[in-house]
Amino acid sequence: MENTFEVRTDLAVEEKESFPGDGGEISGVSLREWHRSGSRIKMTEVKILDKKGEKAMGKPVGTYITLEADELSKKDEDYHREVSEELASQIERLLEGKKFRKPDFHVLVAGLGNSSVTPDSLGPRVLNNLQVTRHLKVQYGDDFLKGRSMPIISGIVPGVMAQTGMESAEILKGIIMETKPDLIIAIDALAARSVKRLGTTIQLTDTGIHPGSGVGNHRVSLTKDSLGIPVMAIGVPTVVGAAAIVHDTVSAMIGALSNKMETKGMGDFVEKLSSDDQYNLIKELLEPEFGALYVTPPDIDETVKELSFTISEGIHLAFLGQEES
Amino acid sequence: MENTFEVRTDLAVEEKESFPGDGGEISGVSLREWHRSGSRIKMTEVKILDKKGEKAMGKPVGTYITLEADELSKKDEDYHREVSEELASQIERLLEGKKFRKPDFHVLVAGLGNSSVTPDSLGPRVLNNLQVTRHLKVQYGDDFLKGRSMPIISGIVPGVMAQTGMESAEILKGIIMETKPDLIIAIDALAARSVKRLGTTIQLTDTGIHPGSGVGNHRVSLTKDSLGIPVMAIGVPTVVGAAAIVHDTVSAMIGALSNKMETKGMGDFVEKLSSDDQYNLIKELLEPEFGALYVTPPDIDETVKELSFTISEGIHLAFLGQEES
Amino acid sequence: MENTFEVRTDLAVEEKESFPGDGGEISGVSLREWHRSGSRIKMTEVKILDKKGEKAMGKPVGTYITLEADELSKKDEDYHREVSEELASQIERLLEGKKFRKPDFHVLVAGLGNSSVTPDSLGPRVLNNLQVTRHLKVQYGDDFLKGRSMPIISGIVPGVMAQTGMESAEILKGIIMETKPDLIIAIDALAARSVKRLGTTIQLTDTGIHPGSGVGNHRVSLTKDSLGIPVMAIGVPTVVGAAAIVHDTVSAMIGALSNKMETKGMGDFVEKLSSDDQYNLIKELLEPEFGALYVTPPDIDETVKELSFTISEGIHLAFLGQEES
Amino acid sequence: MENTFEVRTDLAVEEKESFPGDGGEISGVSLREWHRSGSRIKMTEVKILDKKGEKAMGKPVGTYITLEADELSKKDEDYHREVSEELASQIERLLEGKKFRKPDFHVLVAGLGNSSVTPDSLGPRVLNNLQVTRHLKVQYGDDFLKGRSMPIISGIVPGVMAQTGMESAEILKGIIMETKPDLIIAIDALAARSVKRLGTTIQLTDTGIHPGSGVGNHRVSLTKDSLGIPVMAIGVPTVVGAAAIVHDTVSAMIGALSNKMETKGMGDFVEKLSSDDQYNLIKELLEPEFGALYVTPPDIDETVKELSFTISEGIHLAFLGQEES
Repeated sequence: MENTFEVRTDLAVEEKESFPGDGGEISGVSLREWHRSGSRIKMTEVKILDKKGEKAMGKPVGTYITLEADELSKKDEDYHREVSEELASQIERLLEGKKFRKPDFHVLVAGLGNSSVTPDSLGPRVLNNLQVTRHLKVQYGDDFLKGRSMPIISGIVPGVMAQTGMESAEILKGIIMETKPDLIIAIDALAARSVKRLGTTIQLTDTGIHPGSGVGNHRVSLTKDSLGIPVMAIGVPTVVGAAAIVHDTVSAMIGALSNKMETKGMGDFVEKLSSDDQYNLIKELLEPEFGALYVTPPDIDETVKELSFTISEGIHLAFLGQEES
Repeated sequence: MENTFEVRTDLAVEEKESFPGDGGEISGVSLREWHRSGSRIKMTEVKILDKKGEKAMGKPVGTYITLEADELSKKDEDYHREVSEELASQIERLLEGKKFRKPDFHVLVAGLGNSSVTPDSLGPRVLNNLQVTRHLKVQYGDDFLKGRSMPIISGIVPGVMAQTGMESAEILKGIIMETKPDLIIAIDALAARSVKRLGTTIQLTDTGIHPGSGVGNHRVSLTKDSLGIPVMAIGVPTVVGAAAIVHDTVSAMIGALSNKMETKGMGDFVEKLSSDDQYNLIKELLEPEFGALYVTPPDIDETVKELSFTISEGIHLAFLGQEES
Repeated sequence: MENTFEVRTDLAVEEKESFPGDGGEISGVSLREWHRSGSRIKMTEVKILDKKGEKAMGKPVGTYITLEADELSKKDEDYHREVSEELASQIERLLEGKKFRKPDFHVLVAGLGNSSVTPDSLGPRVLNNLQVTRHLKVQYGDDFLKGRSMPIISGIVPGVMAQTGMESAEILKGIIMETKPDLIIAIDALAARSVKRLGTTIQLTDTGIHPGSGVGNHRVSLTKDSLGIPVMAIGVPTVVGAAAIVHDTVSAMIGALSNKMETKGMGDFVEKLSSDDQYNLIKELLEPEFGALYVTPPDIDETVKELSFTISEGIHLAFLGQEES
Repeated sequence: MENTFEVRTDLAVEEKESFPGDGGEISGVSLREWHRSGSRIKMTEVKILDKKGEKAMGKPVGTYITLEADELSKKDEDYHREVSEELASQIERLLEGKKFRKPDFHVLVAGLGNSSVTPDSLGPRVLNNLQVTRHLKVQYGDDFLKGRSMPIISGIVPGVMAQTGMESAEILKGIIMETKPDLIIAIDALAARSVKRLGTTIQLTDTGIHPGSGVGNHRVSLTKDSLGIPVMAIGVPTVVGAAAIVHDTVSAMIGALSNKMETKGMGDFVEKLSSDDQYNLIKELLEPEFGALYVTPPDIDETVKELSFTISEGIHLAFLGQEES
């Protein structure tokens, strides 16, 4: 079945859902779901363990942690604190063994995406809220941060290629050479498969950023291989590709017709046709105008604003050990 | 056939296209298409003449003029001037007989929509560029504008209901009572049926704004009936409802299957099923998440920026008789 | 001494300070200062009681309440809550007897100023954060707000004359005629006399807005007389006129020279000269370029952002009886 | 006279004006002034030739070209084109001998300053308008730019230290190592000595950026020495330090008093006192609140918007040989 049409998602948790079972039985993939007691946040951890898992999931080996809650983007101070705290504890867990509390640990936070395209502005907006500390060392001396057990935090908004003429990877490589951070945290807006995910999910992974991912479709990877230091990625889905809507409609249509036709003894026929037809129909419908179109909710501006605050607070809590004040 | 699913469009030119012919033969509707010689802009005028036309087109009696060009939103100063000039001459034509060049003619320009939602920010952005003149009368005396044959121009961005708690109509009615303009020009971002229209079409009409129209789905009308003075509306489509994508996909799917089934003698069956199935399928697919979702291109920020400048220049040329300087 | 040069301030508390005593002895003015126990906020209430007080203070009869604290504009969630609560309780006190908790009490909040000039953007920014409720009545029925003992809140950003061609007063009058609020709260950025006040003071008054006041120098008044309903004004000083800096320098210079000259028996001479000289010098120095210039701190963007949030929360607490959630 | 108080300016043309003559006779400095025939733009070229000139002017050896015109920031398309063309021809003149038209010449444009502080946002705003080309080479192949005789243009907004924790110099050094440009053009908002310069002057220099300069007071230099490649700087004054206003007032005051006292035989006394008094007075007046305060006109937002467009167009004309289209 060569012509299978794949609609991309940046969420490992959605790749898992595309399998018939609960995902636990996919070879090379381990799965864990839980709620912290009393919390409204649903946690999922997908671990891709080997090449088999990579192939099944279409994502590289590594850990993908998801925080989900319907009210994630609501303007509720108590709730946003709960999410920030959960995010902080997952950041810490993912870095376990990386000894980031050693003196002079330096983390560079990169806010990827385009600040003037609302659904792609998550990264730049997190950086607007981020409390950097690296300059305090310059201003108050080497011991200022050490004395406070604070790691060194720096931040950059590299912009997008149409604005800079450069790949984000080039800009980051240069800055890494010059300032020698120990870790990069890359913040990026993501594309999901389902509209239900928009603004309700945060994904955290230790695998970095891969080509084709993100609202802006990154061309090159930002990973330990390409940048030389570990890359953690934090993202929130803000768009669904128009292709996904078309695909879902075709699938539902075939399902409905097959049921109807069954009673006429024609169900098999529709079923058989479907794979190629589906592929060709979708391709035809999507060409040429739909390619780059995306679906986004009307309140995306508010969603990005709230979640960028939540994520910056999560980073503060993980590294500075307390809420910004 | 009660269950016909209708996907809304704010463009009269798209309503016309939904009829099998060229639109000229729809009862109660007259149609005219032309290019000014040497111009890349395609002009269309749809006139809805009577109740029959209203019913067929789902839009009120009046004149709808469309400027179309693929390059409309490109950053090209010469081209944008050509479009502004064409828009100005159409504004003048639509106001013919309204004697707007009489001394003390006062036009209030209303920038509808939500400035923080990019595809809905056309109105507020036009107002950012608009050169108002009414205060010059206050500052330099009654004869300042008269001596220059300049009409009085004022402008307002009324905001949206979630921001103000008020209908735009209420705010405009109050301002009309207080400042007595002779005409309102309402600028608004529109929803189209086809993604090809996004950012490539300007619609100008003398019928005002109707409930349900616009990216923001206005609840009440802004018309001569509701406001007491003539209302001209200028709009640009910036979104397509997610419903339109689903609807198109279902239609194409049915078409393709009917062709295939025909050879099996089952085409009639699919054809017959389709109307209800179509309706139910679309409803099901759209409920509940898709309701408010829209499809928009990734460069919508640039499109709105360029076209808001073009439209404000068109208004300057129509009323101030020269380009802003 | 006709040629006395007066540097304007929008703060009653600064007018008081220009008198030699503590202000308590100015005829027609009563003064009260206090700290709530445990609070870092210094409270001052200046009451102008009669014509004598009006003349002495250059401000109309009414109550002027000031909240002052050095850390007012800092990004500290606990502290900002304390200020919002104090502001809410002062709003309630000032409205005492106005029975604003009666059912259907309707308050219109007006965000004055220019959103694209940072130090003049306090009003528009407060409105960005404001939770309006009036539309809930329309959407969920008359009893929705009554059942919750919530007053009706609506909001408007009228813009400035150069953008709209209209006075804010005209726009507000129209909206008042149409929507019948019981009270207006006008938010506006203010000019102070002393740079120490910038971003550290909130003034609350029941006298409305007067010509010449505000960063934008309003031309007409917004008062019960002009609008027909009570007008409460809330403001924060964000600029000092360049004239104030010049004036302070001249005064300090004269003081210093008089001291030095005294020993030479010439102090009287300098002293005598000073009033006219001072006036002429300042006029000369200020003409023509300084007229509209203002002095503002480099972190004014952050200050306006934080205080606009604090003020909107204060309004929520006063009228909705709880923090926004 | 050790205690001379110096008010800083980033404009060489203002340093020159602080000398009694026309500046031509300062040792180590050459001066040239001209108008292009028919142009409203006044051109000045200050060349600092050697150490003597450096000391006299407080600026490093190099060429400083100034374009001045009162209407510089007005919204006038024809005029803005004239300024852009003049700027382009001065950029070309300054690069003479640098053979920037050779194939593969790569210029990196750096937009210095803080995008959220209006008077410091010139750099980021120029970059918003800048047409970069470097990515076209990546997308369309090596010959795309060569075939069109277009140089490679890339751009970066490095942000300010409080946002990134890094010096702009560090970020630029990293990017230079990675992308190997031949030239940097640094755009920056400047501090002037006189309010008449605000928004009416563009300065172009081949000396780069020096510590203490700019609205944001850069801490480290961006020069050929520090970055390894030539640095051209383009700036527009948008603020005057509050210190300059105080200084001017004190000077004027002393002048006026000396005249008056002369008739009393006391002029010498005032004159003698003045240097120390002046210094102490200004220091006292400026401590501690005035340090960072600046004076800026109320229309600075419009000024920065217009001039950032003019400067980006000047760069397009210089390097792309035609207006952006």
